[in-house]
Amino acid sequence: MSTITDQLIKFARATPPEDALIMMRLSLFDWAACGVAGAADADFADFVAAQLARGQGPATVIGGQSAPAATAALINGTLSHALDYDDTHFAHIGHPSVAVLPAVLALAEELDAPFDEVIEAATIGVEASILTGLWLGRAHYQIGYHQTATAGAFGATLATGRLLGLEPKELRHALGLCASMASGLKAQFGTMGKPLNAGLAARTGVEATLWAQSGMTAAKDGLAGPLGFGPTHHGQAAEIKPGKGAWHITTISHKFHACCHGLHAMLEAIGDERLSAADVAGIHVRTHPRWMSVCNIAEPTTGLAAKFSYAQTGAMKFLGHDTGAIASFTNDICRDAEVLALREKIKVSEDERLSETQCEVSLTLHSGGLRRLRHDLMEPMTLEVRAEKLGAKAVSLLGDTRADALWQAAQGESLRDLTDQLVIS
Amino acid sequence: MSTITDQLIKFARATPPEDALIMMRLSLFDWAACGVAGAADADFADFVAAQLARGQGPATVIGGQSAPAATAALINGTLSHALDYDDTHFAHIGHPSVAVLPAVLALAEELDAPFDEVIEAATIGVEASILTGLWLGRAHYQIGYHQTATAGAFGATLATGRLLGLEPKELRHALGLCASMASGLKAQFGTMGKPLNAGLAARTGVEATLWAQSGMTAAKDGLAGPLGFGPTHHGQAAEIKPGKGAWHITTISHKFHACCHGLHAMLEAIGDERLSAADVAGIHVRTHPRWMSVCNIAEPTTGLAAKFSYAQTGAMKFLGHDTGAIASFTNDICRDAEVLALREKIKVSEDERLSETQCEVSLTLHSGGLRRLRHDLMEPMTLEVRAEKLGAKAVSLLGDTRADALWQAAQGESLRDLTDQLVIS
Repeated sequence: MSTITDQLIKFARATPPEDALIMMRLSLFDWAACGVAGAADADFADFVAAQLARGQGPATVIGGQSAPAATAALINGTLSHALDYDDTHFAHIGHPSVAVLPAVLALAEELDAPFDEVIEAATIGVEASILTGLWLGRAHYQIGYHQTATAGAFGATLATGRLLGLEPKELRHALGLCASMASGLKAQFGTMGKPLNAGLAARTGVEATLWAQSGMTAAKDGLAGPLGFGPTHHGQAAEIKPGKGAWHITTISHKFHACCHGLHAMLEAIGDERLSAADVAGIHVRTHPRWMSVCNIAEPTTGLAAKFSYAQTGAMKFLGHDTGAIASFTNDICRDAEVLALREKIKVSEDERLSETQCEVSLTLHSGGLRRLRHDLMEPMTLEVRAEKLGAKAVSLLGDTRADALWQAAQGESLRDLTDQLVIS
Repeated sequence: MSTITDQLIKFARATPPEDALIMMRLSLFDWAACGVAGAADADFADFVAAQLARGQGPATVIGGQSAPAATAALINGTLSHALDYDDTHFAHIGHPSVAVLPAVLALAEELDAPFDEVIEAATIGVEASILTGLWLGRAHYQIGYHQTATAGAFGATLATGRLLGLEPKELRHALGLCASMASGLKAQFGTMGKPLNAGLAARTGVEATLWAQSGMTAAKDGLAGPLGFGPTHHGQAAEIKPGKGAWHITTISHKFHACCHGLHAMLEAIGDERLSAADVAGIHVRTHPRWMSVCNIAEPTTGLAAKFSYAQTGAMKFLGHDTGAIASFTNDICRDAEVLALREKIKVSEDERLSETQCEVSLTLHSGGLRRLRHDLMEPMTLEVRAEKLGAKAVSLLGDTRADALWQAAQGESLRDLTDQLVIS
């Protein structure tokens, strides 16, 4: 019988549809913007320097140094997840691009691969991450695994394996090796260990593929075998259908607000609605129960805590603060009198009728009116609107000039043009 | 309440008793002999070359090249487990030295550490691996984790953390990082992925420690926290008492047969008994249930698979093949007509009354006789007898001259003398 391992090996040779490739380039643009902005995080400087001291190589490290592919994948995966602002897929349960792109790009530079093949390999890898995440299922995530890293490592392996042109037999070994290396715990959330998990997944992809190519053998069915990754890691072995119907990558979510993804449906629901404490008797936010323990800090006092607060970010949004800008989330904004006055009027409760991607905001206005705002992150967004929103986000992260150059490179045909954009002068 | 994480952090500063240090030096001697002999395995040559191409460094790679500590730990852990001939601890459930020694030695060369501190750090690390293995318990192993690699990574982290002199707070981060990186599946048994698991564990020890030193933060209780390594990886959280009573390292087992340790009690039980297929109606091997999924390949076709087969190795032993010699385990011996004829008569079954270190072999002879052979690997062995047997094993692996020089170095006071013995000219 065919298992997910067989399915993925076959899927490595699939031809991605056009909408999947377009989405991949959008995610590449967004990932690179998050990575370049994240590289400014001084906390990671010593870690990066220590990796670079191990040796030089052909792959660009975000910032501008270069290193062997595995090292670059490790560093770039870590730095590009430092802001936690990169893309998400709710079914995957994780951030799909951050494990795959650093692996594919680093290996591509080592191979000097054509850019369109890089995009195709990344698309296959991201789709494979999501498929693996679906196959592992919610139990795997709930028990404590960081699916971005675990499912992500398999996606990164499939992507690099395709790029390198591994034969099916070698790819089987690569996935087998990955099964012994894929790891990462949610226990790291709130520490530097969370972005590191993404970096490790990217490195695993590069190493599993290169090691399989160098003749390393491994378990035949690393994912679904009796002692494989799924059975050992609380996987649910849900049915998957690689390449059938619309590709999952086409329903990736991008973050347009520099805070927890659980808050995004509310912020989108608010949209351009503007009001202050004087306008409103009460605001009622209804959200999926899952989020109540994730991002419902009632009275945050720091910029970091603000990123996990419905009341704080809701008040900021109604008052016109730019929730898409990293710089908006300060300790000061948590003491702002106007924000506090509005924050106090926001009540949050769970509503099981809502999905995880939906939110409803009810306003009781002093004018006597009642308003109800709703948003579902799964609502289709045209590629044009998405591109525009991602562009605005990149401008806020990098400034006009860099954002434009990165956009051109991500839409272009040159690997070198893209990796040049990872250099910070 | 104090958890295993707290216990290990405290234990990192313990003073090992004399008998533990003596055993550590015996295991160092044995590990190095296995490593140098294992480096002759051409299968790993491309893998090793690919790692070395990443960059140079101060740590000796078995064979004679040098590399950064993390790379040397990865390669040396892999090569020294290639023969699967290194030491074992049955309570740990794994090979304790192979994850710890490559990590400690590599970092020691980077630090130019005094040899007695290296031995002490390795002793702490090996003991910590066994303690972690005990804490994780049998469920973790049974579901499919390769405890050599998982528990071993924590031991390697504690050993390198001690050697580097990490403060308790940093060591806590190092163990937290290790919790996200420790991995390895039993599904790799019978493939090159098995020794690679050991190498990865050694590298994890070096990296977790160096990264914590470079300021990387992680989960506060990576092992026992709510989403920690134990709860996510089917750990049983058995009670452990670090440093209380005799140290576990003093009950390490060394292999005197070049195959899976699960087969050794049978091979010792057979001893000098010789017979062929013509002599016997049937042979019934009874063993502890644990081994049935580990080393009971019924019809191996490769030398590597033969090392995990009761039927194959039992037949070889009865026919007088030297199971202590690496060279005995070939693809050809799996096709040998005499061996096959006897192999077919060997039935293996589990017997819960036996411990993991016991085996019983019943012979039904055509002469009408019934014979019962038994052995228990836990039968006490003096340090003198052990040293003598290890010496003989090293001579068979390396020849007289090298074995003697290695013995002197392992008992000596110079790190450089020891690492010089890893060089093959």
